[in-house]
Amino acid sequence: MDDEAAARVALLQGASAAAARVFTVLLTRGPISRIGIAKATGLSQAAVTKTVTPLVAAGLVDDRLGTQRAGQPGRPVSPIAVIPDALTAIGVKINVDEVIAVATDLRTGVLADERAPLRDRDPDAVVDAVAAIIATLETALGPAAARVAGIGVAVSGDVEAATGTVRESGLMGWTGVDLGERLHARLDAPVVVENDVRALTIGEHWFGIGLGTDSFAIVTIGRGIGSGLHVNGEVVEGAYGVAGEIGHLPLAAPDRICACGRRGCVEAVAASAAIADAVSKAHGRPVGIEEAARLAHDGDPAAAGAFGEAAAVIGTAIASLVNLAGPELVIIGGEGVADFDLFDAPLHAAFREHAFGAAGRCRIAVRPHTFEDWARGAAAAAIRTLVR
Amino acid sequence: MDDEAAARVALLQGASAAAARVFTVLLTRGPISRIGIAKATGLSQAAVTKTVTPLVAAGLVDDRLGTQRAGQPGRPVSPIAVIPDALTAIGVKINVDEVIAVATDLRTGVLADERAPLRDRDPDAVVDAVAAIIATLETALGPAAARVAGIGVAVSGDVEAATGTVRESGLMGWTGVDLGERLHARLDAPVVVENDVRALTIGEHWFGIGLGTDSFAIVTIGRGIGSGLHVNGEVVEGAYGVAGEIGHLPLAAPDRICACGRRGCVEAVAASAAIADAVSKAHGRPVGIEEAARLAHDGDPAAAGAFGEAAAVIGTAIASLVNLAGPELVIIGGEGVADFDLFDAPLHAAFREHAFGAAGRCRIAVRPHTFEDWARGAAAAAIRTLVR
Ligand SMILES: [Zn+2]
Ligand SMILES: [Zn+2]
Repeated sequence: MDDEAAARVALLQGASAAAARVFTVLLTRGPISRIGIAKATGLSQAAVTKTVTPLVAAGLVDDRLGTQRAGQPGRPVSPIAVIPDALTAIGVKINVDEVIAVATDLRTGVLADERAPLRDRDPDAVVDAVAAIIATLETALGPAAARVAGIGVAVSGDVEAATGTVRESGLMGWTGVDLGERLHARLDAPVVVENDVRALTIGEHWFGIGLGTDSFAIVTIGRGIGSGLHVNGEVVEGAYGVAGEIGHLPLAAPDRICACGRRGCVEAVAASAAIADAVSKAHGRPVGIEEAARLAHDGDPAAAGAFGEAAAVIGTAIASLVNLAGPELVIIGGEGVADFDLFDAPLHAAFREHAFGAAGRCRIAVRPHTFEDWARGAAAAAIRTLVR
Repeated sequence: MDDEAAARVALLQGASAAAARVFTVLLTRGPISRIGIAKATGLSQAAVTKTVTPLVAAGLVDDRLGTQRAGQPGRPVSPIAVIPDALTAIGVKINVDEVIAVATDLRTGVLADERAPLRDRDPDAVVDAVAAIIATLETALGPAAARVAGIGVAVSGDVEAATGTVRESGLMGWTGVDLGERLHARLDAPVVVENDVRALTIGEHWFGIGLGTDSFAIVTIGRGIGSGLHVNGEVVEGAYGVAGEIGHLPLAAPDRICACGRRGCVEAVAASAAIADAVSKAHGRPVGIEEAARLAHDGDPAAAGAFGEAAAVIGTAIASLVNLAGPELVIIGGEGVADFDLFDAPLHAAFREHAFGAAGRCRIAVRPHTFEDWARGAAAAAIRTLVR
């Protein structure tokens, strides 16, 4: 980091709780007037000004965006906004066979992006691949590479965000991998490791569809079934680092055994592998998930039935989440949404059947996140740590 | 309300967001030093002093509790605390056959309590009973009755707290009852109507076992199976007023029909009536829940089996809640805990079987709430509205 960027990071990390709130409001709702910030934070306008002044001096915030009179008499209103490229973040999404990375500005606007195949899931190889893709990205960034304030890394599984330890990742075949420490030893900027769906939820809240929503959940379908829940102003992290494990709610029949070893998990019926297994069994030969989807589209009853059964369990799981947490909106994402037509009707039917009372008014939206969106979520997780 | 109390209420309700935060910290964590308040709220000590001064002048807060030096040199530390009886609240719990009411101080310390039978569940009769018990309580309160700043009413079911409308209450047999408006027309003080388990959760967070806990849930067992979830600093209210409907998670077999009409709800197996039904069927005669518990204690296999099946579904439901929300602590309450020995082992076994990864570290505590505790929760809900 260059001196200027380091001073900005030091200012943010040394900020009082009030200053952190002001910066967060600027980041997620700016441009915004001093009055607007005061209302949003509960601070006096004088306190807001006192907080904004050093942010302006450090080049993090612009308070000279021009004055607006809004056609009314009285004092002019000067909106204030974050200067997006005052600092840069990097977000990396680790997939089973690929790493995807983006460099973003403070508002997760993408400045550069890279992807690279992952040939080996061994932690050492993954750390090498992450370090390599970040190096490539920093070359692409040019001078902005000197302003990288944080790196977020998103991976599927049970991740203890506080330490960066991946306690369990079925997809990666990891147990107790100290990914955060390994990356910390290899990289120059601070690293935060997050569960991938939670990182996506942070991104959606800060800069995406969840921005204007008080409470929402993301449910991802595909290889795994995961979820992230945002309620009472924050993503739900779990007291022990685990939350959103919608894929392991025991809503399926007990004779369905999950990859996690438990009976009746949602994933035991609804994960891509479970769908492919059911179609393989019916056809007496190995069928992959892509072929299963093609067969279902062509009207093959076994394939359509397997997707329908998966969809019903997912709809039941969403109803369960909604009955417990009552969000305003559920966003369905994940690679499985590419074939969402195969899930649509039975998923909604099961949701309607089991959603309780007014909780059922919860809107369900489908959003085909790109892999870059997941990496942006990881970048958002890194940016969030700057102001917490 | 007398003029002094009215002035206190007006001060709290006109408070800035910062002042409301200061008062909340004083209420839940006092006595506390100015430095402690500043740390907890993110305000400067000067801002804290500015906020505390009018609270002291109005008689809501005491800043002259004596100085403490804590054996160290330097400026003395004067702890600040709320004056508990500066205002009074009333909490009412409506049961199927009884109303229970407490008058409390600002910290939900009980000043007086009353209970009265409820002979008729018709909304008019219930409003009469609530008004009557409050009148009795105010007589018992004496001069403190002039300081009643709010009344909280807790009732089972789907309650829209914003309007006080009970959209659905299976236990009361109500649909769309405008309880809040009816009570508003009859009572002098502001009324807030809350779902009973949520009110209990608010009470536990503000003044009970949840006070030192970042995230916790209450799961109540008995006539109904309900839950309340506290996470990210607040009780989860639900975007549409519904949350915590753990009793209607579809975790039981689909041939078990719930009183709500849905298939496979937790309550269809685990509510008192469902347990009593199962025992009645096995014995070929009507058996009530008390007799069912006696039979189970005496080793009757059908009765023990019915409780065991109920317990397994409740344990599975708690695991589902824990997998999704990851709380630190689950408190099991409700009238069913009187026979908790019948639930204990199969409940914990099912929880262990389905809790995912580190989420399973969540502690499970059993707490035999008295009916007064429920009414105190309602009072806490009323007090909370003073500072929001
Ligand atoms: Zn599983
Ligand atoms: Zn039900």
